[in-house]
Amino acid sequence: MTTYIAPLRDMRFVMNELAGLEAIAALPGFDDVSPELADAVLDEAAKFATEVLDPLNKPGDAQGARLTGHGVAAADGFARAYEQYVSGGWCGLAGDPEFGGQGLPELMHAAAVEMWNSSNMAFALCPMLTAGATEAIRLHGSQTLKERYLPNLVSGEWTGTMNLTEPQAGSDLAAVRTKAVPEGEHYRIHGQKIFITWGDHDMTGNVIHLVLARLPDAPEGVRGISLFLVPKFLLNDDGTPGANNDVRCISLEHKLGIHASPTCVMSFGENGGAIGYLVGQENKGLAHMFTMMNEARQKVGIQGLAMAERAWQQAREYAKERVQGRLASGKSPNAVAIVHHPDVRRMLMTMKAQVEAMRAFAYVMASDMDRAHRHPDGDERARHQARIDLLIPVLKGWCTELGVEIASMGVQVHGGMGYIEETGACQFLRDARIATIYEGTTGIQAADLAGRKLAADRGAAMAALIAQLREVLPALERNADAQVVSVGTRFAAAVQALEDATAWMLGAFAKDADEALGSSADYLMLVGYVCGGWQMARAAAVASQKLAAQEDPEFYQAKLATARFYAEKILPKASALLEAIKAGTSGAVVIEQL
Amino acid sequence: MTTYIAPLRDMRFVMNELAGLEAIAALPGFDDVSPELADAVLDEAAKFATEVLDPLNKPGDAQGARLTGHGVAAADGFARAYEQYVSGGWCGLAGDPEFGGQGLPELMHAAAVEMWNSSNMAFALCPMLTAGATEAIRLHGSQTLKERYLPNLVSGEWTGTMNLTEPQAGSDLAAVRTKAVPEGEHYRIHGQKIFITWGDHDMTGNVIHLVLARLPDAPEGVRGISLFLVPKFLLNDDGTPGANNDVRCISLEHKLGIHASPTCVMSFGENGGAIGYLVGQENKGLAHMFTMMNEARQKVGIQGLAMAERAWQQAREYAKERVQGRLASGKSPNAVAIVHHPDVRRMLMTMKAQVEAMRAFAYVMASDMDRAHRHPDGDERARHQARIDLLIPVLKGWCTELGVEIASMGVQVHGGMGYIEETGACQFLRDARIATIYEGTTGIQAADLAGRKLAADRGAAMAALIAQLREVLPALERNADAQVVSVGTRFAAAVQALEDATAWMLGAFAKDADEALGSSADYLMLVGYVCGGWQMARAAAVASQKLAAQEDPEFYQAKLATARFYAEKILPKASALLEAIKAGTSGAVVIEQL
Repeated sequence: MTTYIAPLRDMRFVMNELAGLEAIAALPGFDDVSPELADAVLDEAAKFATEVLDPLNKPGDAQGARLTGHGVAAADGFARAYEQYVSGGWCGLAGDPEFGGQGLPELMHAAAVEMWNSSNMAFALCPMLTAGATEAIRLHGSQTLKERYLPNLVSGEWTGTMNLTEPQAGSDLAAVRTKAVPEGEHYRIHGQKIFITWGDHDMTGNVIHLVLARLPDAPEGVRGISLFLVPKFLLNDDGTPGANNDVRCISLEHKLGIHASPTCVMSFGENGGAIGYLVGQENKGLAHMFTMMNEARQKVGIQGLAMAERAWQQAREYAKERVQGRLASGKSPNAVAIVHHPDVRRMLMTMKAQVEAMRAFAYVMASDMDRAHRHPDGDERARHQARIDLLIPVLKGWCTELGVEIASMGVQVHGGMGYIEETGACQFLRDARIATIYEGTTGIQAADLAGRKLAADRGAAMAALIAQLREVLPALERNADAQVVSVGTRFAAAVQALEDATAWMLGAFAKDADEALGSSADYLMLVGYVCGGWQMARAAAVASQKLAAQEDPEFYQAKLATARFYAEKILPKASALLEAIKAGTSGAVVIEQL
Repeated sequence: MTTYIAPLRDMRFVMNELAGLEAIAALPGFDDVSPELADAVLDEAAKFATEVLDPLNKPGDAQGARLTGHGVAAADGFARAYEQYVSGGWCGLAGDPEFGGQGLPELMHAAAVEMWNSSNMAFALCPMLTAGATEAIRLHGSQTLKERYLPNLVSGEWTGTMNLTEPQAGSDLAAVRTKAVPEGEHYRIHGQKIFITWGDHDMTGNVIHLVLARLPDAPEGVRGISLFLVPKFLLNDDGTPGANNDVRCISLEHKLGIHASPTCVMSFGENGGAIGYLVGQENKGLAHMFTMMNEARQKVGIQGLAMAERAWQQAREYAKERVQGRLASGKSPNAVAIVHHPDVRRMLMTMKAQVEAMRAFAYVMASDMDRAHRHPDGDERARHQARIDLLIPVLKGWCTELGVEIASMGVQVHGGMGYIEETGACQFLRDARIATIYEGTTGIQAADLAGRKLAADRGAAMAALIAQLREVLPALERNADAQVVSVGTRFAAAVQALEDATAWMLGAFAKDADEALGSSADYLMLVGYVCGGWQMARAAAVASQKLAAQEDPEFYQAKLATARFYAEKILPKASALLEAIKAGTSGAVVIEQL
């Protein structure tokens, strides 16, 4: 396995030239933020990812987390790495300063999250889940809960989990059966939860579970679910962890990948009931969970990007080293490194172009989050929030689907060596494969995009997006560089496909939601390719300016060529997706009979 | 994991209605073959696959083959299953009757091979490799070698291997360094081979290795490679296995999948040299190997189909059982089995439609092989041989790429359960993942299609194919059933895309082979989708006739709907591929600089 090297040059390009880091730094509350600070933070994060997290990735996969008589033991070296992660201040990077966080922009956080996941996705899941739990408590917890739990969660001294799924209730949380019985100031929790990421481990002094459960008199369905905080160790009056709570991990799942991330079956209340504290209002648990869903889905989208980046690095280095075969064209008399073979080049460019498109899309979304949170103008905040709400399912769905595709292509570049676990390419495929499933499958993202987002506002947010996409076209078409013009032409066709598909989707929803939903996954992918194309088109325009000014020609020539590859070789998928979308559910009517 | 059930109804439809089993049975040399015999053989094969091979698939994956002090031990139960496979006569199904084979048509063999691979791909690899070795000896071995080795290979009493790859020579066999030194009637072989499938095991009394090696005075490169037969145990005068030969497995690879298929590093000649016998002519080893390449690649193409079929069965059964969520349309007040959710239906139909297209393509190709081998008219034989030569790389490349895609989609249908190894869906993805790599990667198939096949005859065989594709269009467009007309319209567009892409490829080759090869993988996929579409269009036409005659309406309605889904939802990829092909190497020019 090659060593992970953070793609700092491209990260900086995207942050500065496409996502507007300078403007983000000027938002209220980011007084200490500057491009220089971002540079320094990224350098340090890159160092940590390469030196601490990356070396543990393969051994962690081979060893996995283990369930012992004393709970779950993390893979060797993980506890020490986590300690360094906490002491380095990485946990609270974007955390609330009121509870000790550094309050840095989501834009910077996105780059760090990419690095943690590229270098060690199994490890990165632990702070990712903690951030979700932290956010739920911050937004909905009482002042007492916040004061007692948030400082240690923000710093990472303790970790957090999300306990949603039960065996009979996968994505359908209406079916949750875990019970919560009031007992004085607290509740007693009884039930079993499955698929709990980092549900237990030995890296920190406490684990804070957020648990969905039903009160005794709660209504059926999603309106009868409440949210509870259940610590692994109950807190003493001084706030230190004390007695065991009645909760434990009873088994670990044997998974395709992310072996070092323990996926726990958690049992609550085997001995009288686990003590839990209500977070927010009774029966509003699901709504409280949903408030942090955008952030969780955004992070998983970045995981897709991160795995794709890692697979691309690995494949690129292998292709440059592995000498095999001559060129069919006879241009070289000797055997060449396989990077010179046209089809290997195609695979590598397919990986590179989509990685860069995903990165630009993801970071620009992160800057939209910063604007939605911090912009002084309320209309601007609302506009950016609408954009985020519309595109988060696309970021999650599209980037994770591409993550799997690109990790699989990474295996392919290696030939037979790719299939051997020692090489490391398989692990990226195995790890990446979960990301299209958890935090809502691609199908659920697609239903969210098409139903809750597109149909709910009758296409208003999408129309605003399409109008913005069209704004970049004239300049592309007028550009002096033929490569930029080619990018513009292909991008214009893709935007048209998106507009046509959107009209079809809205029409279908008006008639039959099932018909529209049958095309929703193709629609999500179409939106993703077009949004990636948008950022690559913007990148091409910037690159042509920089080249005219003779700035960093090596980087900008590659960027321009990559944008062209994306436009010419990837974006044509838009027209095929449009055709598939317009076909609706087609022959799928017979499927239930099989 | 669900139980594998052979899709006999669809297999029979394809064999009888699309591949012309009756006409195949009428070819010279197939005197005993009839549709009734085929039915009986398929029934028995299906039973063997379900009852013997399928139950060993998951345990075999979990345990894997192991290297012991006495060589490789197959996973538990495999030796007994192999014994039954041999005694059932399955090994010699399509084998040469002169050496004890049953000489049945490739068309029937294709269905059996699909079943072996669907039920247990790791197991199926063993007879698949034996068949390759058998064919090499049959075509190029001396009479003595044939008499001494073929009967036991054809029956399966012994198994065979192909020893090509060396650490420094993956797909580039010019780099082979294993040495062969003449010594009287035989040769002494020295060297190391890697990636040797079923290179050693404890299931049979002997293992017959076919080994590529160089004579002392051999020229450099591919023209200095000879082929040798190297038995694990030297034969006594009476033909029984006797003394150990100087060959052994020194390690097993730790792979992503096909764990029960031992992938061996083989060492020849650690103690003075392994005794080997020349097969065919000196320095013609590579040419001798290539004569059986079509067959090996055809079988691997069928593996892609087989894995896709298995993944589809597993996903379909899960989707019918797993109750979760309500329909967005509100058509059902209660939670429904997920098969009713529109996006799950889309995934299942995407799997089903492509599985059926692959099966039809693969079996029709098998019938072309029978015609190429047995047709009384020499021109017809030549015409079918040209078709096979053209399309074998497509069968191999397209079906194995779809195999991976569909196995991955099978995981997705399961949601979180799909990621858990116990469910079994992951194994199909892990197993399927090798098939785009071995027997020549998809890139190598694409180069073969574009360079050796398309460019070499200046598009003649492809032009003949396109003409034949066009022949089915008028009838489709005139059909009384609107579904068939829709199929015809989409198929016509795809054929046009193929024609345009072919013209571009031929033009590109005339200018720069590298430019053409940069588009060759997209071209291969385009040819695959169109050929699949051809068979599905033919199937639609047959189905509409049968429905008019009120024959088996359930099957033929599903077939028609599936053909429509394929045409409307899958075939649009053709236009996107055409655009990507015509873009040539696009921005890939910069890739070497990275």
